[in-house]
Amino acid sequence: MNIGIVGLGLIGGSLGLDLRTLGHRVLGVSRQVQTCERAIVRGAVDEASVDLRLMQQAEVVFLCTPLGVMEATVKDLVPHLAATTVLTDVGSVKGWVMRTIAPHWSNFVGGHPMAGTAESGIEAAKPNLFVNCPYVLTPTAETPAVAVQQVEALIRPLRVRLVHCQPEEHDQAVAWISHLPVMISASLLAACQNESDSKVLNLAKALASSGFRDTSRVGGGNPELGMMMAQYNTEALVRSLHAYRDTLAQFISQIEQQDWEALHTTLLQTQQFRPTFIKD
Amino acid sequence: MNIGIVGLGLIGGSLGLDLRTLGHRVLGVSRQVQTCERAIVRGAVDEASVDLRLMQQAEVVFLCTPLGVMEATVKDLVPHLAATTVLTDVGSVKGWVMRTIAPHWSNFVGGHPMAGTAESGIEAAKPNLFVNCPYVLTPTAETPAVAVQQVEALIRPLRVRLVHCQPEEHDQAVAWISHLPVMISASLLAACQNESDSKVLNLAKALASSGFRDTSRVGGGNPELGMMMAQYNTEALVRSLHAYRDTLAQFISQIEQQDWEALHTTLLQTQQFRPTFIKD
Repeated sequence: MNIGIVGLGLIGGSLGLDLRTLGHRVLGVSRQVQTCERAIVRGAVDEASVDLRLMQQAEVVFLCTPLGVMEATVKDLVPHLAATTVLTDVGSVKGWVMRTIAPHWSNFVGGHPMAGTAESGIEAAKPNLFVNCPYVLTPTAETPAVAVQQVEALIRPLRVRLVHCQPEEHDQAVAWISHLPVMISASLLAACQNESDSKVLNLAKALASSGFRDTSRVGGGNPELGMMMAQYNTEALVRSLHAYRDTLAQFISQIEQQDWEALHTTLLQTQQFRPTFIKD
Repeated sequence: MNIGIVGLGLIGGSLGLDLRTLGHRVLGVSRQVQTCERAIVRGAVDEASVDLRLMQQAEVVFLCTPLGVMEATVKDLVPHLAATTVLTDVGSVKGWVMRTIAPHWSNFVGGHPMAGTAESGIEAAKPNLFVNCPYVLTPTAETPAVAVQQVEALIRPLRVRLVHCQPEEHDQAVAWISHLPVMISASLLAACQNESDSKVLNLAKALASSGFRDTSRVGGGNPELGMMMAQYNTEALVRSLHAYRDTLAQFISQIEQQDWEALHTTLLQTQQFRPTFIKD
């Protein structure tokens, strides 16, 4: 099958590598000539161009640009697509995509492959990036069932864990497990940074180890990722932040009131809850 | 030298293993006969007893019990000590120890070896646990200089990083890097647990990966550790919690107000701050 990939970064490039291995002909578009060249050299695409007209031949197109340029890109793209072409995205927020991007193309399927590394760009692309990772699809009442089936048939051989849900359910779930952790972890770093006693701050630096390392990791990541979460998933993130703020207030109150029985119950519950949620 | 260790858990047992390797004679006391036997079998002590009179021969005694039984233990212990014996503890809170334990023995040196594993107890004890780890000593105006020197001479061969500071500085620093992270991480778990939409909660479980794993790790740990932090380091922990609550409120406000410039500045600062604090 002829597959189009618009946006040759980590996700687009890795999709290209796997889909070519599976025997598809992969056509890539990037805004940068150099990225096109590197995508060919790295084997992520068969052909690449800075010109969206290359997508005329594609039967399924993966939209792999950052959310910030996705709407402008899709407007430029759709005049070049054949009427039967299926368009699917890989954006990490789905409500906004279904509201803003989907209306531009009737054969649109919202998607989110949940794989990644700390690196980004075509040089970070690698084979089998998606193996065992969730790949969420968010079809709505307007999504043609045959388009969903085509996307599924393409991605299932990547050995992903296919998940279907509503766009809003996806956004609230990723607010809990990804976007909220970034904000509370960044708040930890910001609060430490504000410590006015320089002796305490230097001592904290000398003593910090794995507990601080793990809890602060996602808060010290790429600011553009945090911005994307806040700008495109505002509602779900704010809902999680409010719930978190209230829970934190309960912890503070239990400690201030020295209500050790209540604190013990809470800590026992969080200890028991975590293994039901995630395995170390 | 004859070394005493009261409390044969992870820290006491590991100190015994290393100090015996260095040629000292190690005498251990535990409340449990079985722990005494295991400590001998594992090579953590030369002799062990449930009777504190064994400490009569010790020139330096490491107090390695949990904070919760430390005061009762030191009261029982001091009648058996020779007047020149140096007593030092390994408690993870130092203000409380210097106020509560130190007054029971003039030759007392507050200490905190900052090593550990997720495991506890004599079976978790292992050689070289303290290599490259900070070992904090908190001498005060009342602490005899010669006692500090004796403890230092004993622990320096364990290849620890010796750190001196005030007890209150220690407690505020560990509040930032250890005790606050536990509470904010536990709050994350508790907030998720309160999600009333079971479809969202199940989806969050299916999608959670490394970001959630790392941020929630210390909050899902042993409740007794969290209790110890809250009960014995209340003041410093509450101070950090208040500062954290205020920083979190700023994040929430920036997102609610869609003040993306301010949020971007903050996230850039936390990204730049983290590597000055801790290395991955």
